[in-house]
Amino acid sequence: MSKLLDRAVEELAKLPGIGERTALRLALHLLRQPAEQVSALSESIDRFRREVKYCKKCNNLSDTDICPICADSSRDKSIICVVEQVKDVLSIEHTGQYKGVYHVLGGVISPMQGIAPSDLKIDLLLENISQGGVQEVILALNTSIEGETTSYYLARKLKDLNVKVSTIARGIGFGDELDYADEITLVHAIHNRLQM
Amino acid sequence: MSKLLDRAVEELAKLPGIGERTALRLALHLLRQPAEQVSALSESIDRFRREVKYCKKCNNLSDTDICPICADSSRDKSIICVVEQVKDVLSIEHTGQYKGVYHVLGGVISPMQGIAPSDLKIDLLLENISQGGVQEVILALNTSIEGETTSYYLARKLKDLNVKVSTIARGIGFGDELDYADEITLVHAIHNRLQM
Repeated sequence: MSKLLDRAVEELAKLPGIGERTALRLALHLLRQPAEQVSALSESIDRFRREVKYCKKCNNLSDTDICPICADSSRDKSIICVVEQVKDVLSIEHTGQYKGVYHVLGGVISPMQGIAPSDLKIDLLLENISQGGVQEVILALNTSIEGETTSYYLARKLKDLNVKVSTIARGIGFGDELDYADEITLVHAIHNRLQM
Repeated sequence: MSKLLDRAVEELAKLPGIGERTALRLALHLLRQPAEQVSALSESIDRFRREVKYCKKCNNLSDTDICPICADSSRDKSIICVVEQVKDVLSIEHTGQYKGVYHVLGGVISPMQGIAPSDLKIDLLLENISQGGVQEVILALNTSIEGETTSYYLARKLKDLNVKVSTIARGIGFGDELDYADEITLVHAIHNRLQM
């Protein structure tokens, strides 16, 4: 009917979680928006993909060579929080409570998916730490098997560098119900109970 | 952290049904795609918005002045199926059973939303019919109050033009369960029962 429509739908449907029906709905929605609005969308994603960089220090997304967090003199450079992905940085930043810096690995070790330690930004982390000034590394990886494996791998690597290595607390989340918690979490929460 | 990311997320989150969290997920997904793939997406939506036209005959979306359906000599021009929106044409075309042509109103009469008959492509429809050759108009509008109002309005207008006016059958859908059908549909289905 319209090849322009077909192509827009086809491209939109390549996005994760967007089927052909939703893609059609989105395309027809865009048609009702001002052309400038659609250009603003298309330009923003294109520019983001082409121009965004990775911070040379922490591998976080950045518009500049060194990201604003690493460049911020008020952040505590003696604590590095190691995370898997960019969105983990955003989650922690969102709390507004953490004042140290980050290191984004870009994934976790996964033999199943063919991701080796050399595929992650581990060397950069070790290099940063060996330059001195770092006192503590907080491992904030996910509790998947791959995440745990990566945590153990990093802990072993960090042992010789004279830094304190910690991992974020595991337990029952605030607002979570005990009877919905999985067994491993529950056992862990009881084992690592805190004195009141 | 990255203004480029912030802007992409902001623009993506303007899409219907896409919140900020999903927008972030989409943006980070795009980052993992080849730059050409992201350009293909952004270009396709931009071109679609700027270049797509409305068929001068039936008001359907089209890349050309007259849409492929109106231009197709194998389609039966004596039957016009009147629908609210472009996506209704797609739904009916998808069945592959309808061989007539369409007319897209671009909405329904809605005093509540300030949509008057003059805001819809009703004049174009009447003009097309007055040029002769049309035998039947099928009203395939939605069963909303606005849809029904528009159907009655059109039926009255079409009365003088010497064409047969019909409306699509209402009833219980195939695969639908009787006890889930609403009362109006059920009453209608019984009233308009078909001899076996």
